[in-house]
Amino acid sequence: MTVPHLLDHPHHDGSALYVSNQTPSLGETVTVRVRVPLACTERGIHLRVVRDGEPRMSAAELVETTATDRWYEAQVLVHNPVTSYRFFVDEPGGYRWLNGKGLFAREVPDVSDFRLTVYEPAPSWMTGSLVYQVFPDRFARGIAEKPTPAWAQDADWGDEPIGSGPGVGTQLYGGDLPGIEQHLDHLVDLGVGTLYLTPVFPGRSNHRYDASSFDHVDPLLGGDEALVSLSAAVHERGMRIMGDITTNHTGDGHEWFVKAQADRSSPEASFYYWQDAEPGYVGWLEHASLPKLDYTSEELARRMIEGPDSVIGRWVAQPFALDGWRVDVANMTGRYADQDMTHEVARTVRRTMQAINPDAVLVSEHFHDSGLDMMGDGWHANMNYSAFTRPVWSWVVAEDSEVPALGLPSTLPRRSGHDMVAAMRDFDSVVPWKVVASQWNMLGSHDTPRLRSLVGSLEMVEVAAGLLFTYPGTPVVFAGDEIGAEGVNGEHARVTMPWDEPERWDGDTLDVYRRLVALRRSSVALQTGGLRWVLVEDDAVAFLRESPEETVLVLVARAPWGGAVLPEAVAPGALPVTVYGDVQLVGDGDGYRLPGDGPGVHVWRLR
Amino acid sequence: MTVPHLLDHPHHDGSALYVSNQTPSLGETVTVRVRVPLACTERGIHLRVVRDGEPRMSAAELVETTATDRWYEAQVLVHNPVTSYRFFVDEPGGYRWLNGKGLFAREVPDVSDFRLTVYEPAPSWMTGSLVYQVFPDRFARGIAEKPTPAWAQDADWGDEPIGSGPGVGTQLYGGDLPGIEQHLDHLVDLGVGTLYLTPVFPGRSNHRYDASSFDHVDPLLGGDEALVSLSAAVHERGMRIMGDITTNHTGDGHEWFVKAQADRSSPEASFYYWQDAEPGYVGWLEHASLPKLDYTSEELARRMIEGPDSVIGRWVAQPFALDGWRVDVANMTGRYADQDMTHEVARTVRRTMQAINPDAVLVSEHFHDSGLDMMGDGWHANMNYSAFTRPVWSWVVAEDSEVPALGLPSTLPRRSGHDMVAAMRDFDSVVPWKVVASQWNMLGSHDTPRLRSLVGSLEMVEVAAGLLFTYPGTPVVFAGDEIGAEGVNGEHARVTMPWDEPERWDGDTLDVYRRLVALRRSSVALQTGGLRWVLVEDDAVAFLRESPEETVLVLVARAPWGGAVLPEAVAPGALPVTVYGDVQLVGDGDGYRLPGDGPGVHVWRLR
Repeated sequence: MTVPHLLDHPHHDGSALYVSNQTPSLGETVTVRVRVPLACTERGIHLRVVRDGEPRMSAAELVETTATDRWYEAQVLVHNPVTSYRFFVDEPGGYRWLNGKGLFAREVPDVSDFRLTVYEPAPSWMTGSLVYQVFPDRFARGIAEKPTPAWAQDADWGDEPIGSGPGVGTQLYGGDLPGIEQHLDHLVDLGVGTLYLTPVFPGRSNHRYDASSFDHVDPLLGGDEALVSLSAAVHERGMRIMGDITTNHTGDGHEWFVKAQADRSSPEASFYYWQDAEPGYVGWLEHASLPKLDYTSEELARRMIEGPDSVIGRWVAQPFALDGWRVDVANMTGRYADQDMTHEVARTVRRTMQAINPDAVLVSEHFHDSGLDMMGDGWHANMNYSAFTRPVWSWVVAEDSEVPALGLPSTLPRRSGHDMVAAMRDFDSVVPWKVVASQWNMLGSHDTPRLRSLVGSLEMVEVAAGLLFTYPGTPVVFAGDEIGAEGVNGEHARVTMPWDEPERWDGDTLDVYRRLVALRRSSVALQTGGLRWVLVEDDAVAFLRESPEETVLVLVARAPWGGAVLPEAVAPGALPVTVYGDVQLVGDGDGYRLPGDGPGVHVWRLR
Repeated sequence: MTVPHLLDHPHHDGSALYVSNQTPSLGETVTVRVRVPLACTERGIHLRVVRDGEPRMSAAELVETTATDRWYEAQVLVHNPVTSYRFFVDEPGGYRWLNGKGLFAREVPDVSDFRLTVYEPAPSWMTGSLVYQVFPDRFARGIAEKPTPAWAQDADWGDEPIGSGPGVGTQLYGGDLPGIEQHLDHLVDLGVGTLYLTPVFPGRSNHRYDASSFDHVDPLLGGDEALVSLSAAVHERGMRIMGDITTNHTGDGHEWFVKAQADRSSPEASFYYWQDAEPGYVGWLEHASLPKLDYTSEELARRMIEGPDSVIGRWVAQPFALDGWRVDVANMTGRYADQDMTHEVARTVRRTMQAINPDAVLVSEHFHDSGLDMMGDGWHANMNYSAFTRPVWSWVVAEDSEVPALGLPSTLPRRSGHDMVAAMRDFDSVVPWKVVASQWNMLGSHDTPRLRSLVGSLEMVEVAAGLLFTYPGTPVVFAGDEIGAEGVNGEHARVTMPWDEPERWDGDTLDVYRRLVALRRSSVALQTGGLRWVLVEDDAVAFLRESPEETVLVLVARAPWGGAVLPEAVAPGALPVTVYGDVQLVGDGDGYRLPGDGPGVHVWRLR
């Protein structure tokens, strides 16, 4: 048993055990703490804070020595809205830096410094809950008879979705909002806290990301009354409901765009980017069907994002009472050539929402490196493809998978646990802890293949879901994942829920999801604790989630890996309680023996 | 000989061999090239460009196969002012990303992507020259009789500078501008291209970073006429001259501050940050003697940085004709609490200068992580402590050195070549290549210990200077380094030039500097070529500098390291010419044998 553990590394993260105040005001002082294991030989710990662009060093004070660690404290003056800091570990033979990526025996850039910000994080109703994503056309039919619009082809509820080519966007299954309302018991049963709906505005596609109006709910979905009713039903059950808005573009059938094209002196003409080249305007990723919006237009800002009468505001207000927005293509919103208004748009959207409902939440879609957009003044959280979905997928994917890597001209390769954790730390380290702790972690969405198709087996679904429900952030499940839905790309994965075909429900998968949801709900450390890596191997990773009230140890293995022994100090004087899996964590003379089997998920409560 | 080399890695950098146009206009397309050694097994290369926040992938085209490499080409549309890109190396068993930090078999953030920008780089008169830094009080006395101001204590020319405590800032040696002018032959002899003077405005200290006026040159230095005369003399010799400006603060004796304090309704009162706490205003790093300037004041901008009548403008204009400014504490300029106007100030300063002299240059002092300030729209280059001075120092420092690490509560530790190169790549990779190729690389300044005191021997000075004159960027020498000056901290290192004591000139050091300056001047690859790491070991590093006209191989060892063999492909069909050092690079059957001795510097021209 020579597998090395990381429990002899000094540690800090932004959670409550290490930071006295998550959201200080400008000018306030925050106490930050570092845990230094007794095995370390530090001569001292110093704090480095960047203030107005200049680092300041100050000595941290040794305040407590426990059976396992020395604890140091230092004071961070929050002089800038985003104040970054790291620690200097003064050791014989040289010093090391401790930042959000780990320990470094050399100089490191500031980008991975820890960060305190003056911005309120996402409300706990979201971060403490399971978010359940529904693609309205595919969830359930509630309205018996609906006309087929000219752009659509009717599909039978049991049809396999078309994955590419003609019909991808126009195959219409006829799911609607009353259908969702009829099946809310399924959400309650699963432990869902937040229902997130992809767009409900009318468009000319089954996904409705090509809105033709932001004024009404698509009549095919039941119209405005259906949303009012669904929202009330959701709230009655103690859940929340979020919408989906394309701030980046409209459909080319949108009433604004129709006016703009008809009359280039109209107010609406200023909403779009016009160009000489075909088709005469700028489309999202050159799609003529999705003209891009130009936020240098003050009139657009007024209609779309600013104030209670804006699109953003009206749907958050009664009677629709959306609890927040997920913003489509947030990464491109307000960005064009030499314009970059993304942060300004995000702040305005948030201000508008919170003036109506201070508890409203704003989540961005940024499929890529969102780090520098995530300081928390605008978007509360991001759909966390980069720091969660991609790294986890690359670890759990089957060796022989033919599933394409998202957006890349390759199949998804299988990478080691070292690669997974390095990528997670690289992306997470740029983001303030309270935003990391809010991020929308997903194992798939309406834009990706289904996890089950990627990994090929229930036991590997459990491995991935084990990470989803134990990692910092907000777990998000795309409807159908919990019953074993399959699909090889985003479009193909938009399967219907087989309400009337119980034989198509994978009960074992549902059981895994139910148990993991219950696990997370039962643990304050899993919901709010810090993240301390304990062990990173090719085929297994382990980490601690620590809150002032509780410490939980998570071990996830994708394959047999041989096991390891952790020092007794990881759970001094405690009898670990198995809270997931069926293996007791038993101390022998040397320490606690981690089981070396796999694939599997083990969670123990240490304190 | 099993030391691994890096010549089998795909390579790209921003230099002319790999990028068709260093400064495209917005909307232009640039051809980028990747070199893939024949040993690679790639199925193809793809380009990833971030456009308006969204990555786009496109296949690169195989355009040429040489005896050593396959060359791929792709087109980058420069749609944003700063356009970032990297390469996808499609390989069996997975893909790798090639970015500014190297090759990664996992997902990586965008921050180390290569970058094209629409901003003009520093002019070649600077990047192609040796910059020579002079601290006016310590270089030479030209004026026989000068009064001693009330704040000063006279020092004899041969006195050792006070390194700390009373007298540090007030010990006055009486160097002046006529003294510098009398010794310009020394600069010409050394091969200097640019004379950079620390401040010449009057103050109440020997360093003059506490200006009491920006309207005149300190009479103790000879006044305005002395600068006019020196500037003319410098230009007559084909050299350039740069000044030093404190945009961040003035002295508390400054005429603006005196008026501001006397009359808080005066225009000057808006120039400063006032507070209730002592001393009643904000000082730089809390120094009451250095009140910080507030650029939200439009009147301050007009007086200081905006237009031909501003301080910035007037000294660039005739008859002073400064060729540029080095900006003190540029990292803090315009930054205070929730204000961040640094980039705006930098762009304004540059616009003002270049309206008078399009060839003027703007260099920032940012002692720390300047990366995100260095996109090139404002500062042309930075004093490169982070990506050059610190990493090199940590590699060359003597094991038992007691010299403190800059700004850190520790002595400077000795690190490996791996650590040095990792730090260089971490900091450099954020910065567009043309800025990297302009950075002010230093082995010391008026703010640091002397290199000689750090390393303890001439042969280690040669190792460090070998890197200085072969690495991408602008070499900068602090007057005295070339004759072996010593000093254990910034203040102690501000020694006088012993013009009348030839026995205090270290002729061997001077010879090393002369030969290295001559080497750089003789090589277009050293001045403008790319940077391709060949070998990184604890005690030795080797790299190629490649331009379309020439390839040079640099090997620098701090200690004996055993040597290595490079494949013949590094110099196909060529007979390497030794251009520094005395070892021939000889090919035997296996390849070229790198000598394993050390310390030492070897440079060969391969092509």
